[in-house]
Amino acid sequence: MALAAEVRKATPSRHTIRTYNLCFLGFGNVNRTLVELLLEREAELRDRYGIAFRIAGIASRRLGWIADPNGLDFRGAVDLKGHDFSRAANRPQNSPALAGSVKDWLSAARGNVLFEATSLNVETGQPAIDHIRAALNNGAHAITANKGPIVHAYRELRDLAAARGPRFLFESTVMDGVPIFSLFDQLPAIHLHGFHGILNSTTNVILGEMENGLTFDEALKKAQALGIAETDAAHDIDGWDAAAKTAALITVLMDVPIKLDQIEREGIRNLSAEAVRAARKEDRPYKLVCRAKKEDNKVTASVRPEQIPLADPMAKISGSSSYIYFETDIFPGLAITEENPGLYATAYGMLADFIRAVVP
Amino acid sequence: MALAAEVRKATPSRHTIRTYNLCFLGFGNVNRTLVELLLEREAELRDRYGIAFRIAGIASRRLGWIADPNGLDFRGAVDLKGHDFSRAANRPQNSPALAGSVKDWLSAARGNVLFEATSLNVETGQPAIDHIRAALNNGAHAITANKGPIVHAYRELRDLAAARGPRFLFESTVMDGVPIFSLFDQLPAIHLHGFHGILNSTTNVILGEMENGLTFDEALKKAQALGIAETDAAHDIDGWDAAAKTAALITVLMDVPIKLDQIEREGIRNLSAEAVRAARKEDRPYKLVCRAKKEDNKVTASVRPEQIPLADPMAKISGSSSYIYFETDIFPGLAITEENPGLYATAYGMLADFIRAVVP
Repeated sequence: MALAAEVRKATPSRHTIRTYNLCFLGFGNVNRTLVELLLEREAELRDRYGIAFRIAGIASRRLGWIADPNGLDFRGAVDLKGHDFSRAANRPQNSPALAGSVKDWLSAARGNVLFEATSLNVETGQPAIDHIRAALNNGAHAITANKGPIVHAYRELRDLAAARGPRFLFESTVMDGVPIFSLFDQLPAIHLHGFHGILNSTTNVILGEMENGLTFDEALKKAQALGIAETDAAHDIDGWDAAAKTAALITVLMDVPIKLDQIEREGIRNLSAEAVRAARKEDRPYKLVCRAKKEDNKVTASVRPEQIPLADPMAKISGSSSYIYFETDIFPGLAITEENPGLYATAYGMLADFIRAVVP
Repeated sequence: MALAAEVRKATPSRHTIRTYNLCFLGFGNVNRTLVELLLEREAELRDRYGIAFRIAGIASRRLGWIADPNGLDFRGAVDLKGHDFSRAANRPQNSPALAGSVKDWLSAARGNVLFEATSLNVETGQPAIDHIRAALNNGAHAITANKGPIVHAYRELRDLAAARGPRFLFESTVMDGVPIFSLFDQLPAIHLHGFHGILNSTTNVILGEMENGLTFDEALKKAQALGIAETDAAHDIDGWDAAAKTAALITVLMDVPIKLDQIEREGIRNLSAEAVRAARKEDRPYKLVCRAKKEDNKVTASVRPEQIPLADPMAKISGSSSYIYFETDIFPGLAITEENPGLYATAYGMLADFIRAVVP
């Protein structure tokens, strides 16, 4: 390493600062981390992008909702993680199903942006679809980390957003916040013929820990302790999460709507620790691989454990890292690797969507 | 692979078709391939993006220039590759240095877009900088595959474009047309701490062929025969091309202007075939590696042959493939691999820049 150059100041501040009321629906890890990230980046958002914001609403099915169009106070005494919503003055007593009241909540908060981070419903995509509809119909940008609405209602929500004006963005649904969908916005007139990759962290961590000698149950517990697997990890283990991501990529990037039952799906539940260790020993480790191929205007897709030769970059994707390889007419192989995503990766995708939505 | 879904029609046509006069400066492989790609994708550009175009001007220092605001005829009898510009009626006799007449040529062609693909001048970036200035001052979008203007005049040209209105785009300068710069447009509020990668195809092909038993000179000839290395390959072999790419990435993505002599640079000329083969045998092959690191607001950077352990994905980058690994505050490791770029890869980057420039 040789001579050095000085770093100049970042782009000077814009003169117009616009303030947005932000509403958070589902208040688990993703949205809590997003609030932390927003507060941490508050000065940069203002100085670089002319964006100011208020945390105007927080809601979850379990906790009910709170809203204040002038901004809830999360900077002072209120501990975000320990906050007890049940004491919120405007929480409906015995609140009805939240979906029905999302419109009221957004109106009460005068929300400009909805961050939808409820959990995946593989069967119907609900109630997240209704949440997004309510936001778009209320004039609020809808940003989701939930794959359900993409799998079950992508075209309707895309068209609704186009008709109503606000944006519908979902960069955090696949590979945390790595801008996969936005990348393809930057690949105009390209044709995606196929892709394969490793898109589910929980199963990748479990397979690695089984290779290291743990049983399936021990490995699952370790993934849960690391905060990677949910308490109910069935969606991951049985391949539903990976299948939903595969379907989202096909639906958006190949412009082909596909149902989850059209994707061949096999999880890792039936792999014994012995088989996993033997596969690693013979240098052909098991990975839960997502594949899609478009041929003669038909798409075929699968999610299943495959033994990967060491020469394939997928064999080296360990822990919570992920990987995708796109086959296109211009780039025969264009691959993206996300190594050891940080705590903020998924939340960052929603922050980036927010900036995309409001900065021209 | 299981059930299949039907592919629906692409997005319906827009109703407004806008026609752009395109001008090509430098008429080697890149711009010739770009014209072919444009003609091949003509219907798609019209139907999907509302873009029509005329090939209105072609110029090179050697051939002089031709221009027709109503479009030169490249669809019929004229063989693009065999075209003899010396017979063009409006070619200036004993043409003066082209740089001075670019404005006249663009005016004669009524050019809306300049595709600048002259060869790299590592010392000054000229005359490409003047070409781009002329285009921007003439109200034409300036799209370049030439790293010189980025290394020597990025901020001036960026600010000139912002002041005058047309776009200044340069996606094809690094990793062919893979949207590296556009990717970072999609990573708002992220901080790039460092990167490393393999960005020069010629040296990568030569090193691979030396591993396979060729001498340096034989390997160079093979790279030239493949159309990867220029007739004068010194820029590649001595690391200038890789250094210019490294400087372009630092300048644009780290927002730190850096001069080429601030990058530690060593090419592959001093590597013996024996050393290259021995390194491969001990599973630590030589690669020409670009590195940059930003610490305490200083950037240090290098381009030099390094022995890469097999566990590093760089060890697997063979032939004309390329690779870059970004370290950011959100994604500790975000890597992009371009495998075996097709004939169209670089030209595609310019086509994509054209679409970016004119589609809102």
